[in-house]
Amino acid sequence: MKLLFEPRSVAFIGASNDPEKWGFRILANLIDGGYQGKIYPVNPKGGEILGWQVYATVADIPETPDMAVIVVPPQQVAGVVRECAAKGVQAGIVITAGFAETGDEKLEQELADVARRGGMVLVGPNSQGIVNTQAKLYPQIPPLFPQTGHIAAVSQSGAIIGNICRHLIMRGFGCSKCISSGNEADLHTEDYIEYLADDPQTRVMLSYLEGIKDGSRFFKVARETSKKKPIVLIKSGETDAGAKAAKSHTSALAGSDAVYQTVFRQTGIIRVRNLYEMLDTALAFLCHPLPRGRRVGIVASGGGAGVLAADACAKLGLEVVELPEETIKELDSFMPAWWSRGNPVDLVAGTFGEGPLRALEAVVKSPVTDGVILLGLIPAVRPPARVTEYSSEGDRKRIQDDMVTRLVGLYDRIAEMMKTYGKPVIIGSELPAVNAAFTQQMNKALADKNYVCYTMPHEAATAFAMLARYAEFLNLK
Amino acid sequence: MKLLFEPRSVAFIGASNDPEKWGFRILANLIDGGYQGKIYPVNPKGGEILGWQVYATVADIPETPDMAVIVVPPQQVAGVVRECAAKGVQAGIVITAGFAETGDEKLEQELADVARRGGMVLVGPNSQGIVNTQAKLYPQIPPLFPQTGHIAAVSQSGAIIGNICRHLIMRGFGCSKCISSGNEADLHTEDYIEYLADDPQTRVMLSYLEGIKDGSRFFKVARETSKKKPIVLIKSGETDAGAKAAKSHTSALAGSDAVYQTVFRQTGIIRVRNLYEMLDTALAFLCHPLPRGRRVGIVASGGGAGVLAADACAKLGLEVVELPEETIKELDSFMPAWWSRGNPVDLVAGTFGEGPLRALEAVVKSPVTDGVILLGLIPAVRPPARVTEYSSEGDRKRIQDDMVTRLVGLYDRIAEMMKTYGKPVIIGSELPAVNAAFTQQMNKALADKNYVCYTMPHEAATAFAMLARYAEFLNLK
Repeated sequence: MKLLFEPRSVAFIGASNDPEKWGFRILANLIDGGYQGKIYPVNPKGGEILGWQVYATVADIPETPDMAVIVVPPQQVAGVVRECAAKGVQAGIVITAGFAETGDEKLEQELADVARRGGMVLVGPNSQGIVNTQAKLYPQIPPLFPQTGHIAAVSQSGAIIGNICRHLIMRGFGCSKCISSGNEADLHTEDYIEYLADDPQTRVMLSYLEGIKDGSRFFKVARETSKKKPIVLIKSGETDAGAKAAKSHTSALAGSDAVYQTVFRQTGIIRVRNLYEMLDTALAFLCHPLPRGRRVGIVASGGGAGVLAADACAKLGLEVVELPEETIKELDSFMPAWWSRGNPVDLVAGTFGEGPLRALEAVVKSPVTDGVILLGLIPAVRPPARVTEYSSEGDRKRIQDDMVTRLVGLYDRIAEMMKTYGKPVIIGSELPAVNAAFTQQMNKALADKNYVCYTMPHEAATAFAMLARYAEFLNLK
Repeated sequence: MKLLFEPRSVAFIGASNDPEKWGFRILANLIDGGYQGKIYPVNPKGGEILGWQVYATVADIPETPDMAVIVVPPQQVAGVVRECAAKGVQAGIVITAGFAETGDEKLEQELADVARRGGMVLVGPNSQGIVNTQAKLYPQIPPLFPQTGHIAAVSQSGAIIGNICRHLIMRGFGCSKCISSGNEADLHTEDYIEYLADDPQTRVMLSYLEGIKDGSRFFKVARETSKKKPIVLIKSGETDAGAKAAKSHTSALAGSDAVYQTVFRQTGIIRVRNLYEMLDTALAFLCHPLPRGRRVGIVASGGGAGVLAADACAKLGLEVVELPEETIKELDSFMPAWWSRGNPVDLVAGTFGEGPLRALEAVVKSPVTDGVILLGLIPAVRPPARVTEYSSEGDRKRIQDDMVTRLVGLYDRIAEMMKTYGKPVIIGSELPAVNAAFTQQMNKALADKNYVCYTMPHEAATAFAMLARYAEFLNLK
């Protein structure tokens, strides 16, 4: 599998000069992504594509490529794999669709047989490609080039890999490896999980699953892997309507959801309900220590957010604990007289300066909390009093850069608190901008230091609950 | 209440020259928002604030202001309201906190009594202010200036009004009126709902509720209003933890959630679980006709999204219908041979040009569907084949503007379809950018024509379910 992710050379079979074709677009992405190895486009017409000499057949390539990307029509795929194997190629990605997902189980079985007999591992068919950011390897359909990072994704849907990459980029984060596993004729989700379990670059794994082909191996691999790093997973085809759709998508047999649910529980897999929850959960693992239990302190600038977070926590089985006398007393010493004296701690609109951080620390260090949810950063970042201060472009840039610095400084201090007390502090807050570019700038500055800002109270509560769930698995294992 | 939202003049009691104080910031927002009427800052020190002459007392103001904003310390509020009433002022907003929410029920009762005896209606106390975009009236704490639009919001939490405004702006939409109702000593949520029911600018109402003070009036008003326009509502304090938090936030008695749930069902209120669902639902009502029933067609470019949407629909009680022979036949006539022949209709990665629209129309006009969810717009918008085409700034702008035009053109045709067949087409798709500014540009161009693009399949399914729920209420009423 190392050859798949770190090839010194790539054969690209079905390369094309037509920008409408995948044979062009995927090759372009491989090149534009900055891949440093050799590329051997293959097309019977020969010539040159995107600056690389084209070979008529795989046999004509002057060396044995480490890996092959295959984009020829479905009926030709098995033949191409046979040629690759004959050439000594040991790893391939089949982008081509039109196998088991359209009912042609025979064609798919033949493909798997040819690959195995030839000693080749295959991604796909019906794959959208793979990504290894460290090797600047992006042979995939969407023109997305996430930076290096610590999140890996394996998905039986290619488009969903696209979703994941896109959102990670938008939020300023990178990834380690992405695999669109397609129909999984040869390599299965559990094979990739096993590989990623030992990948030092990967700290959190995401998986979108429609069905499992080898249940007992999946169980074993997932259980071993979960002990090392969290696997955050969406299993679709939960309902009859979804299961039917999955069958025609990747030919997956969705199976009984109750059985899957049991498997996920026992293997420590963190199941989530949708793509937002998946991303939020991945970032929760990346950016926070695990809590020792389910007791939450909530510190909120804005009472409504505190109420929503308390509701969300309770619904997720987290305990919004009573604060002990000593914590209340500490808060009394600097909070305005009319503060709420309870959990959530309402910072009361208007608490600037050191107040919020002192209140946060009091709740973080309180012996009754296993972690804290902090809501509403904006007052602490101190946006300008008047929108008119943004009047010139230069002023705006100066004010914005200053706010970014203040924001990162605040997170630095909170990171310090997490370290000191060994508890997560999960932040749910708007960022102080209605300008998407500025918001992205702030998120990027945070992400560069592995800091995350959730937007809504329920997202922060969900992040906490997912951390707690995984911590419980690790404690039980 | 007209004087509250369309005042010809505003007294601002507790005006300040200190940019750290609400007495400065709110006044600055009132001015910066472009309010055209007269402003009378009041402060015993006199002088001038932000260019307006300051009066020592309300009595000194040379005319009777239509409305008063009150930002003085809690103990002085009742006295100020008495002065306002003596001056003939008929409407006021009390920003000041420190009343029932901190346990001082007596102070709050006194305030309500003084206002009623003086013939004044009061917003608050503990309000963050109000907004009337048509009058360019923004006397509120956060420096947010949404444009005119058709969504109104009433919230017992000020910060949540801020959340709503911020997200509407980020997504390119405006609003009609916003009210941070605070502790509701005098005017209650139901009073605002009653007013907004007849506000021609308002087409959808949002409400964040912690508790109701006059249940029977709320019930009556909500039921009558729901017949005219949808009310989308979050009721927090659902859980014990949340209810306790609500008590110390706005002194609201959250009450039994089961009772609330019954009230919401019977009054046609659309209850949602969180702020994202609230915004998604509001935009669903703004941008689509209501479906006649719960039968959904799904058209997806990307099988995984189709599976997720089918699951989400089934979980929400929507029916992912079997397509009849005639619809399958029509699709057969132009879809690639290997298409899935079922619902979801998988467009199969790579279907460019007219294909997606023809497939969509076939499913929209199919007699078995009440509406359609369309997933995955990106191929239809035809982003450039290579990221390197963006190399110069001028190229990038040209390509981006061209994509915006194509996107809006696509929506125009889908809007036409919705009109022709009287069914909603709800779009869930990434937009083709990983650049937040460009994404915001696209969303803004859509919003300007009342078009919305959801991102995730489950959001589109939720939007459909909310429309169906409201349609059922209207049919039963």
